[in-house]
Amino acid sequence: MAGIKDVAKMAGVGVGTVSRVINNSGYVAEATREKVEDVMKTLNYTPNELARNLYRKKTGIVAVLVPDSAHPFFAEFVRSVEMELYHRGYKTMICNTDKVKNSESEYLQMLRQRVVDGVITGVHSLEIAEYLDIERPIVALDRFIGNKIPVVSVDHKLGGRLAAEELIKAGCREIIQFQGSKSVQSPSQERHTEFERIINMHGITLHSVELGWNKFETPYYEEIVSRVFGEYSNTDGVFGADLLALEYMKVAQEQGKRIPEDLKVICYDGTFVTDVVSPPVTIIRQPIEQLAQESVRLIDHMINGKEYKKRMVEFTPELIRRKSTL
Amino acid sequence: MAGIKDVAKMAGVGVGTVSRVINNSGYVAEATREKVEDVMKTLNYTPNELARNLYRKKTGIVAVLVPDSAHPFFAEFVRSVEMELYHRGYKTMICNTDKVKNSESEYLQMLRQRVVDGVITGVHSLEIAEYLDIERPIVALDRFIGNKIPVVSVDHKLGGRLAAEELIKAGCREIIQFQGSKSVQSPSQERHTEFERIINMHGITLHSVELGWNKFETPYYEEIVSRVFGEYSNTDGVFGADLLALEYMKVAQEQGKRIPEDLKVICYDGTFVTDVVSPPVTIIRQPIEQLAQESVRLIDHMINGKEYKKRMVEFTPELIRRKSTL
Repeated sequence: MAGIKDVAKMAGVGVGTVSRVINNSGYVAEATREKVEDVMKTLNYTPNELARNLYRKKTGIVAVLVPDSAHPFFAEFVRSVEMELYHRGYKTMICNTDKVKNSESEYLQMLRQRVVDGVITGVHSLEIAEYLDIERPIVALDRFIGNKIPVVSVDHKLGGRLAAEELIKAGCREIIQFQGSKSVQSPSQERHTEFERIINMHGITLHSVELGWNKFETPYYEEIVSRVFGEYSNTDGVFGADLLALEYMKVAQEQGKRIPEDLKVICYDGTFVTDVVSPPVTIIRQPIEQLAQESVRLIDHMINGKEYKKRMVEFTPELIRRKSTL
Repeated sequence: MAGIKDVAKMAGVGVGTVSRVINNSGYVAEATREKVEDVMKTLNYTPNELARNLYRKKTGIVAVLVPDSAHPFFAEFVRSVEMELYHRGYKTMICNTDKVKNSESEYLQMLRQRVVDGVITGVHSLEIAEYLDIERPIVALDRFIGNKIPVVSVDHKLGGRLAAEELIKAGCREIIQFQGSKSVQSPSQERHTEFERIINMHGITLHSVELGWNKFETPYYEEIVSRVFGEYSNTDGVFGADLLALEYMKVAQEQGKRIPEDLKVICYDGTFVTDVVSPPVTIIRQPIEQLAQESVRLIDHMINGKEYKKRMVEFTPELIRRKSTL
């Protein structure tokens, strides 16, 4: 394979000149440029991307950090982010931070060292101190990290209200809600606070079950659901993230409960997994594609040194009523 | 931020010497090395990863190409690949090729240009010619691409046999199987051929429904299932990939069919989505984690110039019997 030196030699110019032609920078006489480009064609020379990026101080790579890229919410988010980044000329690096200590730090280090141009983080790490001294592009999904880092989120308070009102309207008297770990500073906590507030206001019994931090596995869901199912046997309504609410619904069905006659179910997120069950289940749908597109729009702006106005961009969730709450 | 020149100046050495210390290459006197390292600490100098990689002619990045990274099979595969690559010191770049023309070519170009050290491809592209002249590390998941590229796969023939025998044992007389597009050269086709062979041998009616190429969306599944459900109304057994078989089961349940009394169901892949339905569904489980780990082991070997012996590595699928075929 021909290298830059071969091109320089054959064109009778210095390596620096070839480099300026490749990077379209600095002064090169028009005749010289043409000559270099002809030689590049003749030798079938492909510039080394690494060298070009080093010169430009950009890599065109954005890292996306999520706890678990196979979790349906993050899987849909990552897919949309990747596609949007691709359309804007970036490549996507992913990292599952859930199982690996320090991987978040390592990616922040790569951001400092300009191996990546930006980071979109959906990680529920408990440590935010490390982010605060970084002046490079970061966008946070559903998570507060200091004052300088923009957050892309959903109006979870509205989401919680829609869910509460739906279960109240359906006549529930004793409700379970599964909620994320309170130790994480996330706007998504608001859905639980609001849900609780409205349910309590109506004098309905509510059991709020707090989950462990960063727990995204079927065996964990099975364990917690089976415990809770036994403990609160008069439950007639359940509200939780997709996989948890569906696990609860499955266990209830296996125990002979009829949906929706004996138990009403609402899933939060409304990813594709809620499409496979019978009866069709009511969801509060997060606009994941919009979250992804906005995250990418913001990171692209930051990488290109443009201003962004809002610290927090909030999208609207949607109630989609199906048989499980009729 | 301190640069390599600042380090060189303060240590009283040339930039080349600092570079040799950073990259741990070439000769540097021990006393000089210590001095340079001290200065690096004092100045809080972080070597530019881009420059280091350029020097090493490696980027430490492996690209993973899949049709749709949110499809549960690929989502689980990508997660395991990323974690295994991370443990081996690589970063993972992903690309969804399904919706974007030419993205596969672009990544192959990046492989040639050494922006990535290797490519693991699970893409069902119809074009393989472009792969044949590449001498760089490529591993194929479940797909034949010429003679030089190793394939990591599952014994799908066994998978097809296990499914057929299970439905025969359960007493099915009229079966639907959903199968991938025949235009793709993939070992996974063998499950359908073998399934068909055994079902036919037993004189059972079989409807094989061929899917469109690279179609992975719920609306498409809904459309094809609703058509097929109306067309073959005496069906008492169904075999298909997770989302399709579950969609069929859901439609059947909504029409009042009882599982397993009126309809037996087997899902192929056995990803996490099969865990959320009632009744629990029988699966042929692909060992996705093993597929991922072996793909990474192979690409790592190839990147490091080691020999690998087998052109095809095949893992064993497993029948997990649950209520849907009892």
